[in-house]
Order: sequence, then structure tokens, then C-alpha cells
Amino acid sequence: MSLTDSAAVDVARSASIASRQLATLSNTSRNDALTALHQALDQNRDTILAANARDVEAATKAADSGDLNHSVLKRLDLSRPGKYDDMLQGILDVRDLEDPIGKVTLRTLLDEGLTLERVSCPIGVLLIIFEARPEVIANIAALAIKSGNAAILKGGKESIESFTAIAKVVSEAIAGSRVPVSSVQLVKTRDAVSALLAQDAYIDLVIPRGSNELVRFVKENTKIPVLGHADGLCSAYIHADANIDTAVKVIVDSKTDYPAACNALETLLVHEDVLESVFPEVAKALIKKGVSLRCDSASQAALAKSLTTDQLSQVRSASEADYSTEFLDLILAVKSVTKTDSAESAVEAAIAHINTHHSKHTDIIITESRSLANLFMNSIDSAGVFWNASSRFADGMRFGFGTEVGISTNKIHSRGPVGLEGLTIYKYLIQGNGHAAGDYHDGAEGRKYLHKRLPINE
Amino acid sequence: MSLTDSAAVDVARSASIASRQLATLSNTSRNDALTALHQALDQNRDTILAANARDVEAATKAADSGDLNHSVLKRLDLSRPGKYDDMLQGILDVRDLEDPIGKVTLRTLLDEGLTLERVSCPIGVLLIIFEARPEVIANIAALAIKSGNAAILKGGKESIESFTAIAKVVSEAIAGSRVPVSSVQLVKTRDAVSALLAQDAYIDLVIPRGSNELVRFVKENTKIPVLGHADGLCSAYIHADANIDTAVKVIVDSKTDYPAACNALETLLVHEDVLESVFPEVAKALIKKGVSLRCDSASQAALAKSLTTDQLSQVRSASEADYSTEFLDLILAVKSVTKTDSAESAVEAAIAHINTHHSKHTDIIITESRSLANLFMNSIDSAGVFWNASSRFADGMRFGFGTEVGISTNKIHSRGPVGLEGLTIYKYLIQGNGHAAGDYHDGAEGRKYLHKRLPINE
Repeated sequence: MSLTDSAAVDVARSASIASRQLATLSNTSRNDALTALHQALDQNRDTILAANARDVEAATKAADSGDLNHSVLKRLDLSRPGKYDDMLQGILDVRDLEDPIGKVTLRTLLDEGLTLERVSCPIGVLLIIFEARPEVIANIAALAIKSGNAAILKGGKESIESFTAIAKVVSEAIAGSRVPVSSVQLVKTRDAVSALLAQDAYIDLVIPRGSNELVRFVKENTKIPVLGHADGLCSAYIHADANIDTAVKVIVDSKTDYPAACNALETLLVHEDVLESVFPEVAKALIKKGVSLRCDSASQAALAKSLTTDQLSQVRSASEADYSTEFLDLILAVKSVTKTDSAESAVEAAIAHINTHHSKHTDIIITESRSLANLFMNSIDSAGVFWNASSRFADGMRFGFGTEVGISTNKIHSRGPVGLEGLTIYKYLIQGNGHAAGDYHDGAEGRKYLHKRLPINE
Repeated sequence: MSLTDSAAVDVARSASIASRQLATLSNTSRNDALTALHQALDQNRDTILAANARDVEAATKAADSGDLNHSVLKRLDLSRPGKYDDMLQGILDVRDLEDPIGKVTLRTLLDEGLTLERVSCPIGVLLIIFEARPEVIANIAALAIKSGNAAILKGGKESIESFTAIAKVVSEAIAGSRVPVSSVQLVKTRDAVSALLAQDAYIDLVIPRGSNELVRFVKENTKIPVLGHADGLCSAYIHADANIDTAVKVIVDSKTDYPAACNALETLLVHEDVLESVFPEVAKALIKKGVSLRCDSASQAALAKSLTTDQLSQVRSASEADYSTEFLDLILAVKSVTKTDSAESAVEAAIAHINTHHSKHTDIIITESRSLANLFMNSIDSAGVFWNASSRFADGMRFGFGTEVGISTNKIHSRGPVGLEGLTIYKYLIQGNGHAAGDYHDGAEGRKYLHKRLPINE
């Protein structure tokens, strides 16, 4: 299928129609479809892995000739030990989560016989755009079906063979369930993205899964709300009262546990009073782990006093751009903070720096003071603000959400790690028996609203 | 001030900085500012009403010469009995609502000494664009301050004198409080809207308050999320088992209680089996209230059998466009529904018609069957789905929310009548004492997450 604009309309409209039917299915019906999906992917393992091997072969050639980054190979390869089984288990894990649909979150007696309820429901149609990882198809199909949303999936060209093979199995598995076939549609055409991003009449939410460039492209080319984050510029502030062990442990983990992750630390701010006490210990531990430091003059001068020549080879002067850079590597920008003309204290200078430079993802403070931590947590405008704990905890699995659609740096709807709940919205239901609003207008005979809060579970 | 792009940046950036400080204020500090605002507007009543009288005078001239719709005059006039006092009382009502900020909605023990909390917080910076109603300034300023959000208000040219007078009083009142002055900024320049809508780096949410055209213009000209609704095309379906009294009462109220409102009924669908029983009674009651009916052939034929010639003068044939028209007047489109090739039953045909034509605002069903009502409520993709109750109940005051920012037809964040809660989001806070994520990786020595749900109130 060549995905012209009219074809994109057809895909989006059929997804929209399917989404309404999907919204009426019970949790059992949705779970049955996931069981069938799991079984089909298990039974067709050999076919899918053979298709995946063709993708890996083509990608290896492209990587060897310099046309593709080698890191893509690892993400593409479904035959790595445990990867296929993890994908299969993920479907069952999602199936066994609590039903996110039909939860009553508000119940009010407006008047005798007139009851208002707010009930969670699916959002409608999701468009998921991803790059190399083929297991995302199974993962997202499971999340969409569990949350009662229709999903349109658009994969990258590197995974085209895997994608085609998995798509066939997914469609056949769903066809045998009560979930409408158009609930999960897989679009392969290379130029489909722009046409799909224009379907704001039918698509309710776009979830890009891939590089920062992909997310930025999507955000700039659609009117549909986008759930995700383009950058992960996480910062830490070490206060004057910081415990040395806490500072070393948290900062080293934040920077080095997985430097390529969006929740890795990129900027370290240090109170001027501990530049020669806490900071050198942190710096030594980072340097030992292979981290290069890019320092402002005060922090660099402090290190010059206590580090060996060998250690200092990993320290250099920072440029202003370093404080706005997501290195995704063993590099850390360092800046000392102090009371200034515009900041009444070092912590206020740190807060101002972070709120100006960060990407609203996750920022942390190292301090022994609860009141200072509270000020920091209230003032920093990020999805996550952590006190004496690593930025690497910003993750749906670590938060105990069971699964994660992605991490959002949006300011509305969902923020931080987004689980199934982030794929739901609510509707207001009223049950009456012939109630008219005109009977409640002001005047001698107007009825009065009771507005009595009722228990949620009854 | 001429609001060039750079001036718009200054307004938005200063609002952003103020919002961070505002986010740290206690409920008491925010309430004190509202008390001061109330007092200042009370004391300056004469000055503000004099300014408003100049707006009304200019608007009257414009209306008389045909340059302005007369309906604007009524909305503009602050001197109408009770209007100014209502505006003042509204500030105190908002002040006395429960604090929407700092509510813990999730608390999880991740591990010993490592606690995760999800806490409600302000969104950040709101841009409110409104037309004639000058009391919106006080209303929105109160809502913004109570919810800890900074607000940029842009008024229409008809209310420029009132706006200037109120703006001065608001700024002076806030200057005497702990709320930063830049938390509420009032922008008067006529061409400011486009420049402000471009400030997506600083502004987090746009709330247009005014005509459908205004909302549509805003939605089409900004990357910032927009909270609101452009249309209110509400529909009702009368099922074969409908109680006649319920149908008459609910349909007449939905259509005639306030026809210009967004929650007024615009389309009526009738099961074919009751075209000659329930429907003529509903039609007679509507016609008695002055409603004109635009019917499909089957419903028109049914009325021809039982209505008088006089009554039939208010009945004519519907065009296809009538089913997509928000009349905002005493006109109702009527269509009979029946089982079709694509719909297994009349109710499914009604659901399909509504989901294709409605604006996702509010739709209603008249039936005596709970299972049918549930099917309808699950299938209709609207912010509100009401059973045997008027569409006119779709309103924040009637829902018991105390106040309302507007009614949203969005599919994410907030849906339906939006109260203070809709002006909040949340952040995730973690408190640890030197916890590193690396300690929890798989392997013999890896620690295990506890993920123990803790009580919310402790």
C-alpha cells in the first residue's frame, strides 16, 4: 500500500471506528486477545527470527559500509539471549496488570435520582512511531489493547522484515479474538509519517519511541498532542551541608550507571563552600569511572589543589554551551554556585540555573536539610525532583508501574514515567430520570443542588 | 507597550520566573493575595465602573452603526444589577476552595529509606485570551493564583477601558502580597495574540474564552496545548422503550433552557418504532416553545400524521448539513434511526451517527434499559454522556466544582467542565539517603525493589 494522504485517512478512520468498539469490551475480552497474541508470537518464533536475521544482515552491511550506526544493530537483533522471551513475557505482564478502564474516580449525588460519575476510559487512537527495536510492536500492541486504545504503529526501515513478519502474526492473532482487527494497524511505507501526523481528526495522541531527533521532528510536525521527551538534561546540586558518602554514591550512579540514558546526569552544580571538601571526593570517584569533567574556573581551581596530574588530565574548562548539552556519554559539566545579585543564596542560584537550562526531566539535590530539600522540590519545574537519590530511578519499572510507555516532559496530562494510566482519560456520566436543568434556576421555585460526595466503591 | 515578538518574550519569560516562585507559596499566602484582590476591587468599584461605562458607550455606538453585535453589549456591561458583586464574591469563593496544590496522590516505598511520592503542582504559565467580558479578569486571576499558576491575560478591544482600570487595581493589590507581581500580567496591545501564541518555550497552556472562531483561531495558531472547545454539537437519542414524560422533559430542557449555550441540544435521533408515539409528543412540546424542526423524511412523515397545520409550519426538511450544524438557536435537526447494513440495531446506528457528527462535548440517551444505557455511555466518545438527564447539566457549577475554567473537548489532560484540578499537574518526588540505581541491577548481589504501596495520608 502506498500511503498517500487518502490512505492515511483510511487507516486513521478505521482505527477510530475500531477504537469505539474496543472501548466497549470487557477486561476479560481484552486479556483473551493478549493471551492469543502471546501464543501466536510464541508459535511463530522461527519465522519471525528468520525475518529478523535478514534485517540484521542488511543492517550489518550498512553499518560496515558506514551508512548506519553500529548501535542500531544491537537494538535490532531479536535473537540476543533472552530478548524474544522477554518480549513474550512482557505481553503477559501487561495482561495481568489491573484494568485501567472503568475506574470511578468521582461520584456525586447532584439531587435525588440524579448522579454524576467520572469514569476512566481509553483515549481513543494512538499513533506510535518507532525506529529500530522490533519488540516495541508486541509491547505497544499489548499496552494499547489492555488500555482499550486503537494503535497505529509505524516502524523504521531497518526493521522492515521483522516488522512485516510480526505484523502478520499480530493481525492473525487479533482476528481470532473479540478485539476488532483494525485496533492494531502496522504501517510500513517509508513516507507515511507526515501523512499520519496530519490526521488530527482521528488520532488522539502520538508516542514517538526513538532518537531525540525523531521526537523533535514529530513535535514540530503535528497538531496532535505528543507524549514523550526530546531531551534528558538532568542536573544535580550539592549543597554546603551535603554528606560526602551520599554525594559520591548518588552522583557517580547518576552519571555512570548508564550514561546514554535520558535519566543520566549531565550537569553538576556545587555550593562554593564545599568546592574543596565534598567536591574533590566526588570528582575523584567520577574520574576513576572514566568521566571527563568540564569545569567553571572556581571548580577547576579547587580540583587543581587536590587532584593528581594524572587525574587532572580528565578535567578541562567548560564552555557556556556545555551547560545546555546532553552529553549521553562519560562527560559532566560542573559549575560552582554562590549568592549573586539576582539570587539571595547559592541554592536559589542553583534553582535558577536548573530551571533555565534543564529539560524538565529529572533533577536532584544532595543535602541533609529537609526544609532546603522541600524548597528545591517545590521550585524545580521537572517531572522528577529527587533528594539524596540517583536520577537513574526515573523509570517506570523502578517506580513500580509494571510497564512504561515512555517518559514525558510535558506539562499536561502525563508527566515522568508513563504507565497504562497515562493512556487513559475520563468521561462524565450522569444518570437521571427526566431531570431538567431549568428546574434549578434561581427563583422561588428553583430546586437546589445537593452536591453530596458519594463513596467511590458502591 | 507595543507588543513586538521581543516584548512577548519578555512577558512570557517574566511570567515563567514568577510561576516558579508562586509554586513555592503556601495556600495561606495565595489566599491572602486573593483577599487583597477582593478588597482592592471593592474599593475601586467607582473608578472601574466609570471606565466600563466608557467601553459600553463606545460599544453602543459601534452596535448602533452596525459594526458590533448587540449581544456584546450585555456581556460587556459590568453595571448590570448584581454583576460586580458576583465578580467580587467569585474571588472569595475561589479562595475558600480546597487547596489543589501539594496533594499526594501516590506514595510507594521503593526500598528501605527510599520513598516515591506523586504530588500535585501548578502547570506553570497560563495564557488566557478572552473577548468582551471584563469580569473574566478577576475570575481568572483568582483561579490562577489559587492554583499557583502565573497568568497572562489578553483582552478584547471592546473592553479596553475596563481592562486597563482593572489591570491597575489587580497589579497594585498583588504588589502588596507575597505573590510575585509578574504572576498576573495583562496585555492590552491589539496585535499581541500571535506573538504570545509563539511563546511555547514559556507558556504551558492556552485557555481561550470567547467565540468558536476565537477558539479555532487559537488552536490553529499555536504549538502550546489549548484547553477549551470550539464547538458544542450535542445530540440526543430516543430509544424505542423511552418513557414519554422523560423524553419530553429532557429534550425540551436540553434544547430550550438556553439555546445559545454550548451544552444545548442540536440533533435529535429517534428510534423508528416511536416515530408516531413518543416523538410527536416531544415535537409538540418543542414547537410550543418556539423550536423549528428540520426533519428527515421518515420523521417528517410521522409528524404530518399527528400535528396541526399550524404546528407543521415549524417543520421542514433537513439537509445533510443540518446534522453537522451547531444552531445555537431555537432550531433542532431530527433524524430517524433504524437497523442498517452497517449497524446491527437502531442504537448502533445512533451511536455511529453521533460519533461521526458530534463535537465530543455532551450526548444523551433516553431509555428505560440500563444495559442499553451502558452500551451507549461506553460507545459514545464524548466528555459527557447522560442517561435520562438534560445535556444542560454539563457545567462546572452544576457538577459541584465550585468554579469552572471552561469546558474541554480535548482527549487528554482535562475533559468536560474543568475546575481548579484541571489547572494542576503533578511531579514525582523521591527521598533517599544515598540510594544508587546500580545496586538494584540483576545479579547475585542486586537489591530488590519493595514497591510497597503506602497510605496517602501520613
